[in-house]
Amino acid sequence: MGNSKTGGLAGVSAGSTSVCTVGNGHDLLYRGYNVKDLARLSTFEEVSFLLIYGELPNEQELKEYKQKLIEARPLDENLKQVLKCIPKDSNPMDLMRTACSALGCIEPEKEDFSDQDDILIKLMGKFSSILLYWYHYHHSNKEISTTSDEDTIAGYFLEKLHNKKADEFHIKSMQISLILYAEHEFNASTFAARIAASTLSDIYSAITTGIGVLRGPLHGGANEAAMKLISNYSNPQEAKNGILEKLKNKDKIMGFGHRVYVDNDPRSPIIKECSSSLAKNDEQKNIFAISEAIEKTIWDEKKIFPNLDFYSASSYNFMGIPTNFFTPLFIISRTSGWGAHIIEQRADNKLIRPSAEYTGLSERKYIDLEKRK
Amino acid sequence: MGNSKTGGLAGVSAGSTSVCTVGNGHDLLYRGYNVKDLARLSTFEEVSFLLIYGELPNEQELKEYKQKLIEARPLDENLKQVLKCIPKDSNPMDLMRTACSALGCIEPEKEDFSDQDDILIKLMGKFSSILLYWYHYHHSNKEISTTSDEDTIAGYFLEKLHNKKADEFHIKSMQISLILYAEHEFNASTFAARIAASTLSDIYSAITTGIGVLRGPLHGGANEAAMKLISNYSNPQEAKNGILEKLKNKDKIMGFGHRVYVDNDPRSPIIKECSSSLAKNDEQKNIFAISEAIEKTIWDEKKIFPNLDFYSASSYNFMGIPTNFFTPLFIISRTSGWGAHIIEQRADNKLIRPSAEYTGLSERKYIDLEKRK
Repeated sequence: MGNSKTGGLAGVSAGSTSVCTVGNGHDLLYRGYNVKDLARLSTFEEVSFLLIYGELPNEQELKEYKQKLIEARPLDENLKQVLKCIPKDSNPMDLMRTACSALGCIEPEKEDFSDQDDILIKLMGKFSSILLYWYHYHHSNKEISTTSDEDTIAGYFLEKLHNKKADEFHIKSMQISLILYAEHEFNASTFAARIAASTLSDIYSAITTGIGVLRGPLHGGANEAAMKLISNYSNPQEAKNGILEKLKNKDKIMGFGHRVYVDNDPRSPIIKECSSSLAKNDEQKNIFAISEAIEKTIWDEKKIFPNLDFYSASSYNFMGIPTNFFTPLFIISRTSGWGAHIIEQRADNKLIRPSAEYTGLSERKYIDLEKRK
Repeated sequence: MGNSKTGGLAGVSAGSTSVCTVGNGHDLLYRGYNVKDLARLSTFEEVSFLLIYGELPNEQELKEYKQKLIEARPLDENLKQVLKCIPKDSNPMDLMRTACSALGCIEPEKEDFSDQDDILIKLMGKFSSILLYWYHYHHSNKEISTTSDEDTIAGYFLEKLHNKKADEFHIKSMQISLILYAEHEFNASTFAARIAASTLSDIYSAITTGIGVLRGPLHGGANEAAMKLISNYSNPQEAKNGILEKLKNKDKIMGFGHRVYVDNDPRSPIIKECSSSLAKNDEQKNIFAISEAIEKTIWDEKKIFPNLDFYSASSYNFMGIPTNFFTPLFIISRTSGWGAHIIEQRADNKLIRPSAEYTGLSERKYIDLEKRK
C-alpha cells in the first residue's frame, strides 16, 4: 500500500457485523458471549453452532449437530483420488485449499444457497479426515478409516493423527484452542471470504479464499512461524540472547502484537495456561520456559504482548502435532467464523469493491513493437 | 454490509496502485497506456507483459516471453490425474480454481517469491490446456495433446477447443477480449488477491482467491449471466418486452452498469464492434439484434449502459465458445492483472485488515447446556 504507516485499511470500517466484536481492541465476544467464558465452559461444537446460527444449541440441537459432523467424516472416492495425487511433501495448507476446492466440484452448493449451513458443517466434519487421510496415505502408507466412537472434532483429529484414543486433557485443550481460533471479526481471511460472498460466488470459493489468505505467516501461518522461532533455542538464556539480537536487527517476530489489540490479546493467557498444563516431561517444560523467556524479553524491550498464535504453538507441540498441521487446525476452527460472515454478507449483500489512489504514469502514447528499445 | 446504499467500500480508497487507473470513472489506462490503443494496436502477450513488468516488451523480450508461455502448455501427470477426478458436469470455474490450487501443491512457489513472474507466465500458458484437457477428457473421451504451432494464447485456446486451426479474425477478436479483461484496478477479485498477498501467502493462494471471487455473477460470472439473459429471447421485440417486465419487477440484470464508471464503460464500444463483426450468419445477426434491443431498452428506461461483459457474451458465442467457458477465459486474461497487483502489494506490503462496526448483542452471560431452551 502507498502509505505503510496508515495503509492496509487499519482502523477503517469496511462494513458492519453482528457476529463478533473485539471491544475496541480490549476484548472478544462471539455473538455477545465472552470468549473467556466460552473457552472455560463450552465445547467447539457448541461455539461453532453459536457462530453459524446465532445462539447456543439446546441439548437436542447439539445432538443433531454433532451427528451431522460425524456423518460428514467419510471421504468420496473422487476426493480420495485427488488426495493421492497431491505430493507428500506439499504444504498441508495447499492440500487443504485444494481439497476444499475439489469438494466444490464434486458436491457443489445449490444455486439458491439453501444448503450453505450443511456445507459448512460438512467441511468442519470432513477437514480432519482430509488432512489425515492424505498424511497417512503418503507418510504411513495406509488408508485410514474415518470411523470412530469419538464424537468431538478435537478428539477425532487427535485420534486419527496418533492412531490411538486421545488423552482427555488433550481433547479439552484442543477444544479450547479451536474455540479461541474460531472467529475474529474482519481479519484478513474473513474479510476476503466476505468479498468472495459479495460477488455471489459459491461457499466453497469463499472458504477456499479463506484458506489461501489464512496461509500467510502474517495471519494463520504465524503459529507455525512461532514454533520455528521457539525451536531455534535450546534454553531460556539462549532464547533471550537470540531475541535481543533479532530486535536489534529489526527482524519480524511472529506471534507477537496484533492489529486490533491495544494492551494484550485476551486469548493469550487462556492458551498459555493450556500450554503450561500440557508441558509434562522435561523437554516440554524446557520449551515452555523458552517460550516464557521469549515473551518476557519482547515485553521488557518493546512492551509487545504475545498473541493467540504464540502459546498455541507450544500447546500443539505438546500434543504431538507436527508443526505444519498448526495452520490446518486453524482452518477447521475458523471455518465456523468464515461461515457466519459469509451467511451474514449474503443476507444483506452489496459487492465489496473499493477504489484506489493512482500513483502511476499519466497517459502515454502507444509505441509500435519495432520502435521499442 | 450494514448500509446497502453506501457499503461495499464504494468510493473508499483501500490503497494505492500504479498498475491501472479508471480515470475518475471515465477511462481505463494500463500502466499509462489507454486500453483503446492497446485493444486496437497490441496483443494480449504484449499487454500481459506490460502489466507484469511495467513496460511493453521489445521484440527480443516478446519473443522470449511468448516462448515461456508456449513451454508452459504441457500438463504434469499428477495434475492430469486431478483433472480426471473432477466430475464432467462441474462448473468450469470450480475446475480452474481447483487446478490452480493443485498446481500450488505440485510446483510450489519458492519461499523468497523469486519465481513469482515465472509462475504467472506458467499459469497463463497452462490454463487453456487445463480447461480443454479436462473438457475433452470428459466430453469427447480423448486426451488432447498440448502441442501446436499456434504461438498466441488466443489462437491456442480456440484451436484446442474446436480441434482445428482458428480463424484469423476470431484470433484477433479473442486478443481484443483478453486485452479488455486483463486489468481493472481494485475490482473485487484483485482486491481479494491483494489481501492474500498481504498475509505473505503464496502466489497460488492469491490467484486461487482471485478465481473464487471472480466466479460470482456480480463479478466475472456476469458474462455468462448476460448470455443466459440474451438466450431467453428469440427476437428483438420479445427481448424488449422481456426486459421491460424485468425492470418492472426490479430483477437484477447482469452486464449493465458498473461500480466505478459514471456515463459508460469505455471497453463496451470496442467489444460491441467485435461482436457486430463476428455476427456472420442469420442466427448470429439475430442474437446481435436481440443484444442491441436489450441495450436500447435499458438505456431508454434507466439510462444504464452496457459494461464489458454484455457484448463479450455474444462475441464469445459467435466464436463457438460454450457459455460456461466465458468466465474461465476471464481468468486467463485477468491473471496478468492479478499478478501485477500481487507483485505490487508484496513490494511494499502491509497486512490488509480493516475494522468493522459492531451491530450485535452486548455482552451476555453464558448459559449452561441443560438450561438452554
